[in-house]
Amino acid sequence: MASYHSLNDLHAFITDVLTALGVPAGDADTTARRMLEADVRGMAAHGIFRLPQYVKRIEAGGYNLHPDIRAVRETPVSALIDGDNGLGQVVVTQATERAIAKAREHGLGWVGVRGSNHAGAAGVYASMGLEYDLIGVYLAVGSSNHLPAWGGLDPLLSTNPLAVAIPAGAEPPVVLDMATTVVSYGRIKLAAERGEKLPEGWMVDRRGEPLTDPRRSSEGFLLPIGGYKGYGLGVVIGMLAGVLNGAAFGSEVVDFTTDHRTPTNTGQSVFMMRPDLFRPLAEFQASMDERIRELRASTPMPGHPPVRLPGDQVPARAERARRDGIELSAATVAALRELGDRLGVRVPPSFQDG
Amino acid sequence: MASYHSLNDLHAFITDVLTALGVPAGDADTTARRMLEADVRGMAAHGIFRLPQYVKRIEAGGYNLHPDIRAVRETPVSALIDGDNGLGQVVVTQATERAIAKAREHGLGWVGVRGSNHAGAAGVYASMGLEYDLIGVYLAVGSSNHLPAWGGLDPLLSTNPLAVAIPAGAEPPVVLDMATTVVSYGRIKLAAERGEKLPEGWMVDRRGEPLTDPRRSSEGFLLPIGGYKGYGLGVVIGMLAGVLNGAAFGSEVVDFTTDHRTPTNTGQSVFMMRPDLFRPLAEFQASMDERIRELRASTPMPGHPPVRLPGDQVPARAERARRDGIELSAATVAALRELGDRLGVRVPPSFQDG
Repeated sequence: MASYHSLNDLHAFITDVLTALGVPAGDADTTARRMLEADVRGMAAHGIFRLPQYVKRIEAGGYNLHPDIRAVRETPVSALIDGDNGLGQVVVTQATERAIAKAREHGLGWVGVRGSNHAGAAGVYASMGLEYDLIGVYLAVGSSNHLPAWGGLDPLLSTNPLAVAIPAGAEPPVVLDMATTVVSYGRIKLAAERGEKLPEGWMVDRRGEPLTDPRRSSEGFLLPIGGYKGYGLGVVIGMLAGVLNGAAFGSEVVDFTTDHRTPTNTGQSVFMMRPDLFRPLAEFQASMDERIRELRASTPMPGHPPVRLPGDQVPARAERARRDGIELSAATVAALRELGDRLGVRVPPSFQDG
Repeated sequence: MASYHSLNDLHAFITDVLTALGVPAGDADTTARRMLEADVRGMAAHGIFRLPQYVKRIEAGGYNLHPDIRAVRETPVSALIDGDNGLGQVVVTQATERAIAKAREHGLGWVGVRGSNHAGAAGVYASMGLEYDLIGVYLAVGSSNHLPAWGGLDPLLSTNPLAVAIPAGAEPPVVLDMATTVVSYGRIKLAAERGEKLPEGWMVDRRGEPLTDPRRSSEGFLLPIGGYKGYGLGVVIGMLAGVLNGAAFGSEVVDFTTDHRTPTNTGQSVFMMRPDLFRPLAEFQASMDERIRELRASTPMPGHPPVRLPGDQVPARAERARRDGIELSAATVAALRELGDRLGVRVPPSFQDG
C-alpha cells in the first residue's frame, strides 16, 4: 500500500532529522531539497527513501558534518572542489552553483569534486542550470562496485551515471538521467522479492552465462548497456568524475552500502554551458521545440503509447507532487516513522496512516 | 583475400584522387590523413573504404570544394564554425584545432560545427588533443537515419556517435569511440552476405519483435544500446551536435548514402579540456596508469582473454600499420583500383596484386 505525503511535511521531516543529528540548518535544507527533487522527478531510489542510510552513516561518524568545502584549484571556467567528506548533496550543490556562475559569466564552466559522498539523482544537478537556460552535464562515480571490466571477474566498476539537461522553449527540457548498466541492483532485489525470473541480458554469472534467478544475484554481475560499449562509457565517466578529480575509482571505491565509516572520497563532475554561444537563445529554443514535437508526433509502434522524450514527464510529475504530495511505499513510510520515533523527531501526520 | 598497402601509397592515392577532382592540395592532404587515421585505428568503415562514396558526392556536386570555413560566433572558450558544405574531414579538423587552441590557452574549448559533412571516425577527432595532453570529446549527428524514437516507427534518428579520449602516462590513452546503436548497418549487411542469422537484440521489426533474418533488414530498425537509455543518449548527442549548432537533426537529416547532391548541413561538436585544471599533469597521468593497470590485471572470465581498455590496442595497431601497411579487403582494393583507373590516377603497385 502506497500513500501520499506533502512536500512541505517531508522537507520539514528530513531537515528535523538531520539537524537533530548535528547537521547545520542550511545544509539540512539543501540536502532535503535535493532528495525531494529526486522524488519529484520520479527517481524514488535517490529520494527520501535514502534517509535511513544517510542517518546510519552520520551516526557511524562517516561524514564530516562541518566540512570546509572549498575550491583548491580554480580558473574563470573551472574549479576543483574539495568536499572535505561533507554530505554529498551539500558538496555537489555548491559545485553546481559554481559551474552555473562560471557558465553565466564566461559561457562554459566545468567543476570537479573530490572528497564528496553519494549525492542522489544525477538529473537533479544537471537540471539546476535550466532556470538560467543553461545546458548541464553531470557525471559521477557510483558508490559501490557492482560490475567487473568487460570480460573480467573482479567488481571494479559501479553503475557510473550520466545526466544531460538541455533547455527547450515551450516544451519541457530534455533531461537524460541514466546509469550505464541495463538495470540497477534495486531492480534485481525487487524481482527477488516478487519471485520473478530475470530476463536474459540483465545479469551474468561468473562464467558469463545469463543469470536469471534473482536469488542467485550475489553469484553474478550487472551487465553494462550495449556490452563493451556501456563498459567503456562507465570507464570514461569514472575517469572524468573520479581520476581527474583525485577521487576514488576502481578498487579505491568504498562500498557505502556496507561500510558506513570510511571516507568514500566520492567524485562528481558538473559542466554547464550557455546555448547562446552558438545560436541566439530564442532561435535555439524554437528549434528544440520543433525537433521535440517531431519526435513526439512520430508514429508509435502498434499498441505502444505515444513516443516520449527523456525527462518530458518531469514537469507533470512536479505539478502532481505539489498538488497531491509524494507517493511512498508502506515499507518506506514505516522505516521513516521508526527513524523519527527513535530520534525523537515529530513525523508528518500522513505517516500515521501509511 | 585481404592484402596490405603502405600508408604512404594510400595517402598519395587519396590525395591524387581528390586533387584530380578539384579539391585543393591542402584539403586533400587533411582528408587523406583523417581517413587513414581511421584505418590505422582499426575503424575500416570510416577509412579509405569510404573514398568511392565521397567521390560520388564530389562528382554529383554535393560538396563545396572551395568552402569559406569560418567562425560565425566566437568567445575565448567557444566557437560556432560554419563549414560552408566543405568536406567533413576538412571542416571538423579546423574546428578541432580551434578547440585545442582554446583549451591550451583557457583550459576549456567547445567548438560546434554546422554546414559540415560526414567526417569519418569519431575517435580520430577526440584523439587530436592527446599530443597536447588534452582530454577530448566528440559528438556527431550521423549521416543517415537508421532508427526511430523508442517505441516509434518513423526513422528520425541516426547512430549518433560519441568519442572520449583521455590521456594517460606510460599506458596508452583511453579512447572510447562508440555509436549509440548495438551494431552498425554495415554489420547487418555483412551478416546478410555471409548468410548468418542475427542474434536477438540487434534489430526489431515494425511490431517491435526481434528481426533475425538480415535479408529482411529493410523491414526493421537498428536497436539502441540499453533500449530507451541508448535512445536517450542518441537524442541528447543529436541535440548537442545538431540543434545547438543550427545543424540537421531528425527529419532534417539528409541520407548521404542515397542522396549525393543535397547539402547535408551535418553537425558535430568538439570539446577539449586540460586535465591540469584539476590535478598536476604528472599526478593525473600516474593515477590514470594505476587505474588502467588495475583494470587490465583483473581476473578474466574463464576462457576469456585479458581485460582490455577502450582504445588500448590503437598504439600497437598504429605500429603495425606503419610497419606492414593497412589491410584492405579484395573488394575494397578492386573498388579503389577501378576508381583510380576511371579518374586516370596512378594506383599503388600493391593494388595490382589485391
